Amino acid sequence: MAIPEPAKTRLLHLLALLEREGKTLTSTRAEALTGWTRDTIRKDISHLGAEGGAGSGAGYAPESLVPLIRRALALDRKRRCCVVGLGRLGSAYVNYREDAANGEFELVAGFDINVNRLELLSAPVPLYPAYKMGEVISRFGIEIALLCVPADAAEAAAEKLAGAGIRGILNFAPVMLSLPAACVVRNVSVMDELRSLAIKLP
Amino acid sequence: MAIPEPAKTRLLHLLALLEREGKTLTSTRAEALTGWTRDTIRKDISHLGAEGGAGSGAGYAPESLVPLIRRALALDRKRRCCVVGLGRLGSAYVNYREDAANGEFELVAGFDINVNRLELLSAPVPLYPAYKMGEVISRFGIEIALLCVPADAAEAAAEKLAGAGIRGILNFAPVMLSLPAACVVRNVSVMDELRSLAIKLP
Repeated sequence: MAIPEPAKTRLLHLLALLEREGKTLTSTRAEALTGWTRDTIRKDISHLGAEGGAGSGAGYAPESLVPLIRRALALDRKRRCCVVGLGRLGSAYVNYREDAANGEFELVAGFDINVNRLELLSAPVPLYPAYKMGEVISRFGIEIALLCVPADAAEAAAEKLAGAGIRGILNFAPVMLSLPAACVVRNVSVMDELRSLAIKLP
Repeated sequence: MAIPEPAKTRLLHLLALLEREGKTLTSTRAEALTGWTRDTIRKDISHLGAEGGAGSGAGYAPESLVPLIRRALALDRKRRCCVVGLGRLGSAYVNYREDAANGEFELVAGFDINVNRLELLSAPVPLYPAYKMGEVISRFGIEIALLCVPADAAEAAAEKLAGAGIRGILNFAPVMLSLPAACVVRNVSVMDELRSLAIKLP
């Protein structure tokens, strides 16, 4: 019954494409955008259950497929998030409102070690000094942290987050984090994205 | 001689891991971090040429592999970039300094349609009103744009960028862009990253 990892990753990409497209994606266009054959896509969709027939001859309709993919990938339950480190990038994310669109992720707190900075910032969620991380994370049941601190502070902050029960970290700092298996790390970097783009340039 | 696309993507990921690790990556750790077998990694490295033997029994050494991968993926020549749209995210990127680390990408300009905003912002690169995009892009030979405008302004801005000769766009707006094949688009979204993390949570 479990969906294989590569199929999950492709379904996630298909989900993002369907949402961006906002209308039915023809098989031909889906092949062009993803680089996968329609057989691969059909097989991935077959994991979504009986209603998966949604993606057949007529193309892929977001109104039927988006909820099916979200359910199959367990993205249909809200997860609480926080932003750690409120420099330029962290401040941008703590004000990010795309989460409102579908309610998968709810930003509930921001943290920074610098109390003066907290007083200068405005944000749609409460901001706390870093020493309150453990208490706030457990009080609100926060599962995911966007780690936006400088490179040399990242490992210590990540260890505190893992200790406080955070289950996943989006790591924007350009360093490798070493954490217990109970806390999953995903490294995110605009440099990696620029490189991925650069190797595709004609 | 050309490296197959999947191998390129893996080499890019290996490059990022080596840089983050900052020291020799053992085969075992590389397997654990990537999920690929050491045979796959060895085959990918074989595309780097004679010196590719760098990644053998002793593990993968950044000092030998990083320059080889960068050369093989044509990342060893500087590409000029600009940021379009200087809201919170765009302002963060226009101040981004990681590019200084290896010189693959050089940020040379920022653009915004709002002239009042330009006067309020400070940045390490010159900022211009949006109507100067064409002129500045061609004068400085800018190849890549980080598109950080609101969703409803993204398509028009992207068309202007493509018209001005931009070769690649990192699109941070949550919409699908339709551009001529001469301009490559890579969609980037913190929502996609959060979802990719969420489906891996234990």
